[in-house]
Amino acid sequence: MNIGVLGAGQLGRMLALAGYPLANRFTFLDTTGHPSAGIGDVMVYTDQHHLDDFLDKVDLVTYEFEHLPVALVQAIEELRPVYPSSEAIRICQNRAQEKALFDRLGIPTPAYRLVQSAEELEAATRELGAPVVAKSVTEGYDGKGQAVLRDPAEAVDAWRSINHPQLVVEAFVDFVREVSIIAVRGREGDVAFYPMAENLHVDGILRYSLAPMPDLDETVQQTADGYIRALLDELDYVGVLTLELFQTRDGQLLANEMAPRVHNSGHWTMDGAVTSQFENHLRAIQGLPLGDTSARMPTCMVNVIGQEGDAAAILAIEDAHLHRYDKSERPGRKLAHVNLLAPTHAELLEKVHACACLLPEAPEPRFSFEDS
Amino acid sequence: MNIGVLGAGQLGRMLALAGYPLANRFTFLDTTGHPSAGIGDVMVYTDQHHLDDFLDKVDLVTYEFEHLPVALVQAIEELRPVYPSSEAIRICQNRAQEKALFDRLGIPTPAYRLVQSAEELEAATRELGAPVVAKSVTEGYDGKGQAVLRDPAEAVDAWRSINHPQLVVEAFVDFVREVSIIAVRGREGDVAFYPMAENLHVDGILRYSLAPMPDLDETVQQTADGYIRALLDELDYVGVLTLELFQTRDGQLLANEMAPRVHNSGHWTMDGAVTSQFENHLRAIQGLPLGDTSARMPTCMVNVIGQEGDAAAILAIEDAHLHRYDKSERPGRKLAHVNLLAPTHAELLEKVHACACLLPEAPEPRFSFEDS
Repeated sequence: MNIGVLGAGQLGRMLALAGYPLANRFTFLDTTGHPSAGIGDVMVYTDQHHLDDFLDKVDLVTYEFEHLPVALVQAIEELRPVYPSSEAIRICQNRAQEKALFDRLGIPTPAYRLVQSAEELEAATRELGAPVVAKSVTEGYDGKGQAVLRDPAEAVDAWRSINHPQLVVEAFVDFVREVSIIAVRGREGDVAFYPMAENLHVDGILRYSLAPMPDLDETVQQTADGYIRALLDELDYVGVLTLELFQTRDGQLLANEMAPRVHNSGHWTMDGAVTSQFENHLRAIQGLPLGDTSARMPTCMVNVIGQEGDAAAILAIEDAHLHRYDKSERPGRKLAHVNLLAPTHAELLEKVHACACLLPEAPEPRFSFEDS
Repeated sequence: MNIGVLGAGQLGRMLALAGYPLANRFTFLDTTGHPSAGIGDVMVYTDQHHLDDFLDKVDLVTYEFEHLPVALVQAIEELRPVYPSSEAIRICQNRAQEKALFDRLGIPTPAYRLVQSAEELEAATRELGAPVVAKSVTEGYDGKGQAVLRDPAEAVDAWRSINHPQLVVEAFVDFVREVSIIAVRGREGDVAFYPMAENLHVDGILRYSLAPMPDLDETVQQTADGYIRALLDELDYVGVLTLELFQTRDGQLLANEMAPRVHNSGHWTMDGAVTSQFENHLRAIQGLPLGDTSARMPTCMVNVIGQEGDAAAILAIEDAHLHRYDKSERPGRKLAHVNLLAPTHAELLEKVHACACLLPEAPEPRFSFEDS
């Protein structure tokens, strides 16, 4: 089975590493001009004949990057099976569509407004109560295209800085933690759910994901499972889907956004779960049985951002698993991640702190359950 | 770090899959004309200019196949670091040298004789007591170049069928089981040992490896650790070394042969150990700290030989991990392996039987500890 992947970054690289053992071969179609997968057959898309070459090589198509021209994915869908479908991309590319879908399925979200001018932004900020966060409805990624407004008077500046014709304005949520639920749905509609992860972001970039959470109420996991199952079924989705949520002080979950792909907050599954999110995505899109999503033991994923750190020192930590992306260093760039495993959460936190000390730009890892 | 690998089969493929996450890149030099790695940059060696190209690309060299021209490896050693050294290849290519090394280090072996004619073969068979096994001193692999003599009168036929100027003749050992010990030695002389595996062979081809063994006396593991450490230190060895042994009824270990590389009987470590043999080999040769060699839980590796079997049915077994080599089917060919994990040995054996039923040519898995 030759699998075509739209996008050619580290997510595609890790898909390929999970797929070689299934005898899959990989052809990547990069649309950014900056492929970094460093594995398989990488093609850079600039015109139609690249697309034809790509399609000649592949039996089915998936993607590791949702900021793709929807028309391109729809055109591919006419010629090859595409999992997940272009519909998932279309919705995930537009925060307004995404929020409407959440609303339709009864998945709670933070209060929000759609605005199309600085005046509307100011009014929405007033209505929701500052601070608010304003986000362009399209093309946001890792904190780009966003602004925090601490006062309605900042609306003109914020409007100008985001520079987009339509924004979603969201009330700030007094959340205890950011969490994510990752699930996978097979071609026959079978679904498997990973244990939820607690995620620590700094400046909109994920820094740590920890799963399973020691203090997670089983009913909260079941609520999240229900939300993501509704999304999967509504979209007749095939593959891995990620839903990021806020958990409030009273335990409620509010959907933040979803990603129609394997996700950074699921990298812990590479070493910490029986079956990784990458393998399960590939199993799903090929119509193979889904693998067990259970955690083997408490696991924390530590992102390596901007600078590599000392690989030897990281590898000297017991049960540390380094996953480098073979990219050059650049501020803010995701270069690698480390998965740390330990039999107890207390031991795990010790390792996380030890690992963070080895990474020049790592913020302090402080999880919500440490406060209790 | 660009790593050059001599040989380009499934062992090289799995080395590469373990090495991408360390940001290694791989260039393979195949000397057989039939590379199957299907990953990295594969070059077929036919003349000197291929070797020059290969060396231009790589920072250090290792191998996944020891049946290489020693002179070639020695020539490479003049220009690039080679781990393990050519000395390990030289000895492992010659059963007479290998036995002499075992003798010198006090590692017990089955009684043996070296013979250089049919007459000497007949005499050795008489002396050791039939049945005996005769093996060419060089080029044997997976049961090729061997003959069992049930009577000294078979010496002429056996000599002719093996067709080699020097043979090792070994007394049959009344063994309870075949086992192997895999260890890894770093550049600084640090050593880590994997739990021993019990191996089931049929017609000289490995079919099952199970580790850890439920009934293994700790002192037996320590004895094996001592033997392999003696070999590693004597050869100033860097990387993974495998020693295959017989365990006799009274618990004694007798060395059968060694392999200067990652080994089929260590494939269980890919899913069943904290650090796989492949990753540890790469850590060792790059001077990185060795990873934890502990087993996560009882694991059995099932080889897929000749025919693929039903991948979907295999993947439906809980905690089954399929590793295909993306090769075409051919009788006797190693095509894939499945690692099965279970919390207890009883559950593991159930899975092994279930898996064997899905493989057209799998013999019955029957481990020594099932008899007790």
